[in-house]
Amino acid sequence: MKSMKQYGGCPVGFEKVSINGGFWAEKQKLMEDITIDALYKRFEETGRFEALKGEWREGKPNKPHIFWESDIAKWIEGVAYKLQKSRDKELEKKIDYLVDLMEAYQSEDGYLNIYFTVVEPEARFTRCTDHELYCAGHLIEAAIAYDKATGKDKFLKIMKRYADLIDRVFRIEHSAAFDTPGHEEIELALYKLYMHTGENRYLQLAMYFIDTRGTSKRDKTYDFASLEYMQSHLPVREQFTAEGHCVRALYLYSGMADLALHNKNESLYNACDKLFDNITQKRMYITGGLGSTYRGEAFTYDYDLPELTAYAETCASIALALFARRMWLISPNGKYADAAELAIYNTALSGVSLTGDSFFYENPLYADPKKKAFNDSRPRGLMQHLPIMERAKVFDCSCCPPNILRFIESIGDFAYSSSGDTVFAHCYMDSKAEIPLEHQIVNIEQHTQYPYDGKIVFSVKDGCGFSFALHIPEWARSFDIKVNDSECQFTLKDGYAYIDRLLGTGDMIELNLDMQIETVEANPEVRDICGRAALKRGPIVFCAEGADNRFNLRDVRIRRDTRWQIYEKEIANTRLIGISGPAEVRRRIDGLYSAEPIERQEVTLNLIPYHAWANRGVNEMNVWFLLKD
Amino acid sequence: MKSMKQYGGCPVGFEKVSINGGFWAEKQKLMEDITIDALYKRFEETGRFEALKGEWREGKPNKPHIFWESDIAKWIEGVAYKLQKSRDKELEKKIDYLVDLMEAYQSEDGYLNIYFTVVEPEARFTRCTDHELYCAGHLIEAAIAYDKATGKDKFLKIMKRYADLIDRVFRIEHSAAFDTPGHEEIELALYKLYMHTGENRYLQLAMYFIDTRGTSKRDKTYDFASLEYMQSHLPVREQFTAEGHCVRALYLYSGMADLALHNKNESLYNACDKLFDNITQKRMYITGGLGSTYRGEAFTYDYDLPELTAYAETCASIALALFARRMWLISPNGKYADAAELAIYNTALSGVSLTGDSFFYENPLYADPKKKAFNDSRPRGLMQHLPIMERAKVFDCSCCPPNILRFIESIGDFAYSSSGDTVFAHCYMDSKAEIPLEHQIVNIEQHTQYPYDGKIVFSVKDGCGFSFALHIPEWARSFDIKVNDSECQFTLKDGYAYIDRLLGTGDMIELNLDMQIETVEANPEVRDICGRAALKRGPIVFCAEGADNRFNLRDVRIRRDTRWQIYEKEIANTRLIGISGPAEVRRRIDGLYSAEPIERQEVTLNLIPYHAWANRGVNEMNVWFLLKD
Repeated sequence: MKSMKQYGGCPVGFEKVSINGGFWAEKQKLMEDITIDALYKRFEETGRFEALKGEWREGKPNKPHIFWESDIAKWIEGVAYKLQKSRDKELEKKIDYLVDLMEAYQSEDGYLNIYFTVVEPEARFTRCTDHELYCAGHLIEAAIAYDKATGKDKFLKIMKRYADLIDRVFRIEHSAAFDTPGHEEIELALYKLYMHTGENRYLQLAMYFIDTRGTSKRDKTYDFASLEYMQSHLPVREQFTAEGHCVRALYLYSGMADLALHNKNESLYNACDKLFDNITQKRMYITGGLGSTYRGEAFTYDYDLPELTAYAETCASIALALFARRMWLISPNGKYADAAELAIYNTALSGVSLTGDSFFYENPLYADPKKKAFNDSRPRGLMQHLPIMERAKVFDCSCCPPNILRFIESIGDFAYSSSGDTVFAHCYMDSKAEIPLEHQIVNIEQHTQYPYDGKIVFSVKDGCGFSFALHIPEWARSFDIKVNDSECQFTLKDGYAYIDRLLGTGDMIELNLDMQIETVEANPEVRDICGRAALKRGPIVFCAEGADNRFNLRDVRIRRDTRWQIYEKEIANTRLIGISGPAEVRRRIDGLYSAEPIERQEVTLNLIPYHAWANRGVNEMNVWFLLKD
Repeated sequence: MKSMKQYGGCPVGFEKVSINGGFWAEKQKLMEDITIDALYKRFEETGRFEALKGEWREGKPNKPHIFWESDIAKWIEGVAYKLQKSRDKELEKKIDYLVDLMEAYQSEDGYLNIYFTVVEPEARFTRCTDHELYCAGHLIEAAIAYDKATGKDKFLKIMKRYADLIDRVFRIEHSAAFDTPGHEEIELALYKLYMHTGENRYLQLAMYFIDTRGTSKRDKTYDFASLEYMQSHLPVREQFTAEGHCVRALYLYSGMADLALHNKNESLYNACDKLFDNITQKRMYITGGLGSTYRGEAFTYDYDLPELTAYAETCASIALALFARRMWLISPNGKYADAAELAIYNTALSGVSLTGDSFFYENPLYADPKKKAFNDSRPRGLMQHLPIMERAKVFDCSCCPPNILRFIESIGDFAYSSSGDTVFAHCYMDSKAEIPLEHQIVNIEQHTQYPYDGKIVFSVKDGCGFSFALHIPEWARSFDIKVNDSECQFTLKDGYAYIDRLLGTGDMIELNLDMQIETVEANPEVRDICGRAALKRGPIVFCAEGADNRFNLRDVRIRRDTRWQIYEKEIANTRLIGISGPAEVRRRIDGLYSAEPIERQEVTLNLIPYHAWANRGVNEMNVWFLLKD
């Protein structure tokens, strides 16, 4: 479907949306009570902070790693988002200390990367494929967040100096060994920096990086990687299929969307929209996961979505949500919020344990302890990539854990946007929002148990004569909207219900989304799951775990006409909604092959939200079940 | 089922069984008309023969490879089997030339390996895991075959000198760096050498290698491999599960079975029988393929049988047949011939094209051209193992092509065995046989279109008062046996029908096996194929190929009650039997996921024997189909 473009969309940042209750209040509390400190400890133990002292010399421990600063940056950014709600001396002391270290190792010319400062100074700005400018981008995002939260601008000044150097070296002098960064991220960060400082050269540099991509002979990759791996195979406006490393790709597309919105650039928007459709219509797991292979952490080809070896990196789903949120600002089409919700409620949340202190990098759709055990016992050099069965406290490349932190702390970003005098509600969450429109600021309270319940109630605390558009998720078989307890007229367009009257103080809008349990088949071209179906309720995809089901989860047969029972369950002190119902599995037999039909037995299949799996030790997990005819 | 042991079994070698018509006459003609020369050319082109001149020096081409002699040996062996039927000056000239080269580079002390002679002389007998004694074993088999075929014993003398050296170094002096070979094969070759020469020390050395295995601290592996990889993790009598490199394992088990038979060694037989059952009841593809991963070309664990990444090496299935044939000499149990037939008629034959000049090393059960194309385009260093879609003319490690040659040329080995005054018929093939019994030599003609037809007719041309036992395959739903056109009494025991009367000259025995098309399910524990079934008729497993079916082969749904039609088909001038019948596939849809049932359409599914796949270019191939409830 061709999308309506308006370009008039304005984000409503999470700082204007306070989460006071419901699903996300619990998640944010978890981040603030547990995750922030857990990550800090891990990064400390692994020498990430120590490394910033720049004291490393050949033979000494804590050798700085090329992407360590990006891990630290995302932790600072996440903490800063928390500080925007409530300051915290202890946390600020930690950040100020880190900022002082950065100030100390920042070079005269403004260069800032600890690895290229103490390990390979001669290699500065020579490795296109590497994480050098990616780190810069995350540090810029962190500096902006910390400045907003505390008014302390030392970090911001450091990063502006570095950004100025990058601008000179890349855009003005072309004195670097390559022209555009092989690991994208800085593009969207520079746009943020421009929006925060108003300094035009950062916008120019972002535009330069995006317009130059795919046109430079100097942008070379490691010999193991292809140009597609880093999205340098074509000019961005000629990229119609999502290729290569998923996180790199989605950060690029997000930056492209920022500029398409800002410059009302139709060709850039069209490229983004084609890429978005290619991803969501051909290359996305039902859980909103991206990346069909660990080789290059990459997209492969249309309809190639293996379950066991799915990569579906946590960061990639976060990035998909970031991309989708930018797209709905340009064009309020429900498909963007639909994809964002799949990514958020399934793969992104699967990235962190219910206890908040351990993390998944990859999020497979099937996990088999036997294969894992086998994998662990493989001879060295013959290792096979197979899904991780348990979350880890930290990774060598620990991009996902702090990404989840900053993402959940800023989840309010996904609630609303505005355009002219219209308020758009995209992803529903219990919140109080202050929404700036063209001629007024509107205050709206939202109460809901979403995603576990389809009832969402908005009350207008302050505002007059504004329009209201509500996202109607693609999964909603039916819905109704009441204003002040009476049915109201609305116009349904591109997945949004536009209420046919103006609203103001005292109005109460009630949206009821029919949240059925859906039996979902994949396109037959997805050869890995032919004959199988997944169960979904609202944006939540369910999975079965061995902990709740003492039978072979791959052999489970479900029926379309099953009336699934919804039940409340608690795992690791987290309340969640599961479903259960009758299913069939075959009985055990002796022997390997049977020409006789193998007997079936009825079992009760218990399912939990996919994002809650692997919180009870190693056990089998499955999302796609055999579908009885 | 516990097997009855008798230890009295005697092989009836292929030299006593002439194949004059039917399925195997065609295959042997193909080998003799095409394969023998095709392999010779490839080996010549790739410098394998040139290397034997020993002229290689650092920097020069045709550097000898550690296992090249085994490739040459298997070619000589295969050619020698042909020469046993009819001499051929040209071929003998080629072999005599090669033997002269070997004589020239054989060391004073009898050592014979071109790689360790010209490339790494210092490394002789130091690398347990390597192919040094494996090459020796194949050369010994070849020398025996050539001596039998031509009476020219130069090659045999060369190999006896080498075997004497190996005996001294390993069994007497223990002066090698290891105690038992990491790549088995020499054990069964030494037993053959003992049987051919009557020289006891070769038997002693074979027993030494087998009894010492798993007990020596000096038997170490490359650091990438485990002791399981080369079956050195335990003494052979304590190995109850098939582990590690499949071909190494099955050549070892074959050697163990030789000695169990010869020495009437119950503990050795029991180990063999347990290993056989572990393989066939838990680790064997329905095609008789062995090896669930390319990592180590190895077994993995019970019920782990992935289709797309199956290794199922041609050599491993040949080795399974060799092992099974030895086992039925010890204990006439139908399970051995059943497994042998699966291996022979499916994976082993899939190893060679119908044109006889190209070969598969691996034999996957599902092949997807998209995955292959994607694989080929992967960045270097990020290669994924995925099935080969087309056969190759030769491989760097080209063990399979000459193995198929010697195997098909000696297929007569599988027809009969004898015990006392009983003739056992195991695998049926159109043939004339001269079978030595305790007190007479029996001549039996066998006429059949097996494996495409279940009718087998035996006529006794010469013999009196002997007993006859016929293998009744596990797939036969029913069968009848007539002697001279009238029903006869028989006793069914362990998969063999023992005719209750003595037979003699002029008797005609007709066996009719009910050859139904079977819909076969795998044990539910085989998670990779839950919900799927394969189609089988007699020993032939069917597959569908894109060339005959213009729809998604993974989405095909078959029914148990389908009345499949049998049809004759010709591919590459080879007549074969296919089957066809109605099936269902889902229609194409837009979008990636659908909560609505996806419409089905009826299609005609056309299947051909698995072994005949990939003879019509790159296309999709599938064995396991969705099974409608």
